[in-house]
Amino acid sequence: MKVVRFSAPNTALEFAEYDLPDVLPGHVLVKVAASGVCHSDVMPAAGMASSYPRVPGHEVAGTVETLGEGVSQWSAGQRVGVGWFGGACFTCTPCRRGDFVSCIVGKVTGLTADGGYAEYLLAPADALAAVPDALAFTDAAPLMCAGVTTFNALRNSGARAGDVVAVLGLGGLGHLGVQFAAKMGFETVAIARGAEKEAFARDLGAHHYIDSTINDVAAELKKLGGARVVLATVTDAHAMSVTVPGLEPRGQLIVVGVPQEPLAVSAVDLVLGSRSVAGHASGTAKDSEDTLRFAALTGVRPMIETYPLEKAAEGFDRMMSGDARFRVVLTVD
Amino acid sequence: MKVVRFSAPNTALEFAEYDLPDVLPGHVLVKVAASGVCHSDVMPAAGMASSYPRVPGHEVAGTVETLGEGVSQWSAGQRVGVGWFGGACFTCTPCRRGDFVSCIVGKVTGLTADGGYAEYLLAPADALAAVPDALAFTDAAPLMCAGVTTFNALRNSGARAGDVVAVLGLGGLGHLGVQFAAKMGFETVAIARGAEKEAFARDLGAHHYIDSTINDVAAELKKLGGARVVLATVTDAHAMSVTVPGLEPRGQLIVVGVPQEPLAVSAVDLVLGSRSVAGHASGTAKDSEDTLRFAALTGVRPMIETYPLEKAAEGFDRMMSGDARFRVVLTVD
Amino acid sequence: MKVVRFSAPNTALEFAEYDLPDVLPGHVLVKVAASGVCHSDVMPAAGMASSYPRVPGHEVAGTVETLGEGVSQWSAGQRVGVGWFGGACFTCTPCRRGDFVSCIVGKVTGLTADGGYAEYLLAPADALAAVPDALAFTDAAPLMCAGVTTFNALRNSGARAGDVVAVLGLGGLGHLGVQFAAKMGFETVAIARGAEKEAFARDLGAHHYIDSTINDVAAELKKLGGARVVLATVTDAHAMSVTVPGLEPRGQLIVVGVPQEPLAVSAVDLVLGSRSVAGHASGTAKDSEDTLRFAALTGVRPMIETYPLEKAAEGFDRMMSGDARFRVVLTVD
Amino acid sequence: MKVVRFSAPNTALEFAEYDLPDVLPGHVLVKVAASGVCHSDVMPAAGMASSYPRVPGHEVAGTVETLGEGVSQWSAGQRVGVGWFGGACFTCTPCRRGDFVSCIVGKVTGLTADGGYAEYLLAPADALAAVPDALAFTDAAPLMCAGVTTFNALRNSGARAGDVVAVLGLGGLGHLGVQFAAKMGFETVAIARGAEKEAFARDLGAHHYIDSTINDVAAELKKLGGARVVLATVTDAHAMSVTVPGLEPRGQLIVVGVPQEPLAVSAVDLVLGSRSVAGHASGTAKDSEDTLRFAALTGVRPMIETYPLEKAAEGFDRMMSGDARFRVVLTVD
Ligand SMILES: [Zn+2]
Ligand SMILES: [Zn+2]
Ligand SMILES: [Zn+2]
Ligand SMILES: [Zn+2]
Ligand SMILES: [Zn+2]
Ligand SMILES: [Zn+2]
Ligand SMILES: [Zn+2]
Ligand SMILES: [Zn+2]
Repeated sequence: MKVVRFSAPNTALEFAEYDLPDVLPGHVLVKVAASGVCHSDVMPAAGMASSYPRVPGHEVAGTVETLGEGVSQWSAGQRVGVGWFGGACFTCTPCRRGDFVSCIVGKVTGLTADGGYAEYLLAPADALAAVPDALAFTDAAPLMCAGVTTFNALRNSGARAGDVVAVLGLGGLGHLGVQFAAKMGFETVAIARGAEKEAFARDLGAHHYIDSTINDVAAELKKLGGARVVLATVTDAHAMSVTVPGLEPRGQLIVVGVPQEPLAVSAVDLVLGSRSVAGHASGTAKDSEDTLRFAALTGVRPMIETYPLEKAAEGFDRMMSGDARFRVVLTVD
Repeated sequence: MKVVRFSAPNTALEFAEYDLPDVLPGHVLVKVAASGVCHSDVMPAAGMASSYPRVPGHEVAGTVETLGEGVSQWSAGQRVGVGWFGGACFTCTPCRRGDFVSCIVGKVTGLTADGGYAEYLLAPADALAAVPDALAFTDAAPLMCAGVTTFNALRNSGARAGDVVAVLGLGGLGHLGVQFAAKMGFETVAIARGAEKEAFARDLGAHHYIDSTINDVAAELKKLGGARVVLATVTDAHAMSVTVPGLEPRGQLIVVGVPQEPLAVSAVDLVLGSRSVAGHASGTAKDSEDTLRFAALTGVRPMIETYPLEKAAEGFDRMMSGDARFRVVLTVD
Repeated sequence: MKVVRFSAPNTALEFAEYDLPDVLPGHVLVKVAASGVCHSDVMPAAGMASSYPRVPGHEVAGTVETLGEGVSQWSAGQRVGVGWFGGACFTCTPCRRGDFVSCIVGKVTGLTADGGYAEYLLAPADALAAVPDALAFTDAAPLMCAGVTTFNALRNSGARAGDVVAVLGLGGLGHLGVQFAAKMGFETVAIARGAEKEAFARDLGAHHYIDSTINDVAAELKKLGGARVVLATVTDAHAMSVTVPGLEPRGQLIVVGVPQEPLAVSAVDLVLGSRSVAGHASGTAKDSEDTLRFAALTGVRPMIETYPLEKAAEGFDRMMSGDARFRVVLTVD
Repeated sequence: MKVVRFSAPNTALEFAEYDLPDVLPGHVLVKVAASGVCHSDVMPAAGMASSYPRVPGHEVAGTVETLGEGVSQWSAGQRVGVGWFGGACFTCTPCRRGDFVSCIVGKVTGLTADGGYAEYLLAPADALAAVPDALAFTDAAPLMCAGVTTFNALRNSGARAGDVVAVLGLGGLGHLGVQFAAKMGFETVAIARGAEKEAFARDLGAHHYIDSTINDVAAELKKLGGARVVLATVTDAHAMSVTVPGLEPRGQLIVVGVPQEPLAVSAVDLVLGSRSVAGHASGTAKDSEDTLRFAALTGVRPMIETYPLEKAAEGFDRMMSGDARFRVVLTVD
């Protein structure tokens, strides 16, 4: 089978021909149809994978090819997805509490095991999500990471229908977050840089738009009564922190983007309004399945640019350029 | 001013001419534009009002006429609504905890004070909700009771977007409940009697329809994976109880209709699936305001039949017939 | 190894000599030190086991004897317990959500697999809980069912420290429930039949006692401000139902005992106070581990009567008599 | 009546003789018996009061002297307390939602109105808490601020009995926080500077002690399995931030002390463990009442040093020295 891989840290993507992997007990071999290119793929590029060579890719959609021993919950030919969540250990303390996403083993597709830039992918059975027939593979792929991250953060935020929910950033995650928020019945605010994005934000379902280059974001949120939730999809710590005073009492800044520098949060802002700042990890395979099902039900779709697997490096560069609108997806035929 | 009233328990509605009431401190005189006729208006009819004569009506929309001493949060001419919640005492234990809807004094518009079947209504300032310009008074009125009851129950249910939520009954409350559920992003199931209601249910946004006259409701819900929430808007205890086995684990039957007979609930069904049965009281004035705002935002509207105040008795009879589609509203000009 | 078993439905307990079971992959062979006798052991007695002969017993404490293939989270000689929860399937929908106690496979120790009335027990590795050194095996055993059921229900109830929490019943579950409630900082009410139990209830930590034979339980609860939670450990549906009006607004009746007849619950009582009635299943192995750890930390202990395994039938009869104070435990040496 | 006041910003406390204030409608005149001296009294000292001269003091206990018009929920001679919460406006958005502590008017005893360094205090009726007979006034006073702040933060934290809860700091707030945590059934960790405080921490009920001067606090917390909650009572932002990696997955740092500098929080620490940092405002009068009731029930008491009102300045200096063990209380006879 063809794969695209990092042969070592800080090398360019390269092609390789692999034998089909042995299908281990408890695992499933997936024939890849589409594989999203995510900014987190810089992690294996930069040397953070558990070993090399490493095939990146954690936004995978395809069909079940072969079932390993002991796997009966999936069937050959079934449409499935695999995301960032690479399976649970089932024995650590978080797993014993059912909190798989906090598993201390930390299996991550494309990071601790080979991922989806390939014709086939071997994954633990519990890392798979069923893909509804109504979703194209190319649409399902980005929903396995950018989708579940935003959908799951929003549905777990405690915000109730009608509450003011702001999405900070209008990129790969944000353009999905705005759609999800609107379809969940939130009074949805999009926050991004530049006036030219307003029309697009409104097309996605945003009821309000704040151009952060010319406005005091917190002040604008306060005019709307304050936000119950700000979902921060950017990677700029300062842009996140300045939204805190725009939260309504008991409001929450939810961090899903991961800036390098720490957030600087005023204790006064936290205490006086009983506000909070929370991180949200992406989600389990079942969470992804819920995401896909919700997208199929409500019409939420990623906007994508597709590249054939052969042009993976080009697709990767396009993602890195920041100009892709809004997710790059590799297709495998 | 003209009013329509019950002069005593178990009498017919009659007209009367009243002087405009003195505007007490902390109160607001509202000029009524529209007043919904609710099945709960049988309570003052049947002798459950605190005194007689009593003007019924707890689904009121109109404009602020006069402000009582100490009221500064409303302004003359402002569009407002008054619902079942007739104001808090602010000193009982629930009120001190901020749980106004559980106030032990139990002020109820049209029951412990004169209501909206009239040209003017005197209400405590804290019983008022702002009505968005986008909502007609005749649409706002039913949202002050049937609307807030279903909206508030759903948004407080703990169900998350994408969860299976069933609405039992397609009458005055149910036809709003289905709309709200769909706009909140739930996978929405309507349950009603007869195949002929399916198309209507789907028009309201239902993704699934269960005809309870020919199906085992719980079995049908289980086919969908089980319901996270069943919102029971009917007044038939048996129809409510039989849905419990159709709840998914940790699912909840939320009772907003009030049958005379008790619900019979199997402890096995509760314990094995960690299920629950909960009552939900309507909501405060602020909850109603949230309801109206959500309706304005998302396009949820009641279906109504209007009668002029002069024909209040006819409107009341129409509501009692059970044939109204779906709320009767009295208009005052 | 010696076991005590039901050879068929509706037969008396009998002794048998078994070979040690093969230690299956993912399983652990436990050398039994103590095995509680629970009223639910009537289920295998009455024919509800998955097959016969069946060794009952789901309150087991002992030491790890042998580890099956793939089990590394336990070690030989480790002190462990096994309770009602007989392991998860990890693939059904509740399991994929981490809600193992709602697993649809429903593995139950002593019911779908042989239990603890024996010298050895084979259990799935995920069904084991670590037993702290500070707890005797005979104390740990009843905590694996009666303990976790009450502890877990209370800690998951949403009641906050200082809230009024009532425990209905002072038997095997109730005498633990009262201790747990008091140690969790609840204003604890014990409800039982007869004045003679008051002193005992207060010894267990109850701040209030209600003799249900001479008092209106709901009225007495209301005098205390209403209960946030009533934990119903009895199996009398009527005794449960009558407490509902004694709940404070938003209070909850939590059902852990399972009466045959349905609970009759007034919709008025539910709706007017936004009250609820919820079932609570026992808990996972990790929940049991938390229970044991809490008991070790705070001094909560079951009151027990011990019988050697040889006298299992006598111990079973003692439990059935209802006179045991309060849990019968079989000891194996 | 005698009062002690700041005549202007940045002046020393001085005595003055005032006429008894007129008892406004909705207000209560309280005869002060004890008045705590809190570090937040530097706020009126430093010019943050709404006007001058200003009598400080927001930890007041005494008896009802006179009731204003319209006040019927209190009675003359009743034992009451008044804390930081100076009453709600009942009309702003948070108040309409029942979230009085977030009232945008922000009435604060001793800051926007005269406080408790006096023989009498005038307070809105909704700012009063009933004091149980079992509590001495000198014990009740500090519970109205230091007590409710820690008690309310802990009971609202979502931590369940048996969870690991750490209290950072062992001063005026912390020595109460440790007691409350232990009485709520948490596995309680005290974190403070220096080995010499360990014995004291354990006397207060701590199960574990971490000396932050010689240990890596987060590493020590991880050895205990990670903290569900760290309650930060200190005013050192760095000491707060470094605990975040010691939180278990989904754990929360709760900030009640207010450092000047911002907290620096790593997004990686937040996202990978789904952790959060939250501010917690003190509590309403009802929350304080719950605190007092819990203290009476469980034996939690502040450690205090008393000074007569005449020596208020001396007591204030003692508090400012940081050497008081642990709260200074002014007594009025
Ligand atoms: Zn794990
Ligand atoms: Zn990704
Ligand atoms: Zn109504
Ligand atoms: Zn009240
Ligand atoms: Zn049992
Ligand atoms: Zn399962
Ligand atoms: Zn203070
Ligand atoms: Zn306010």
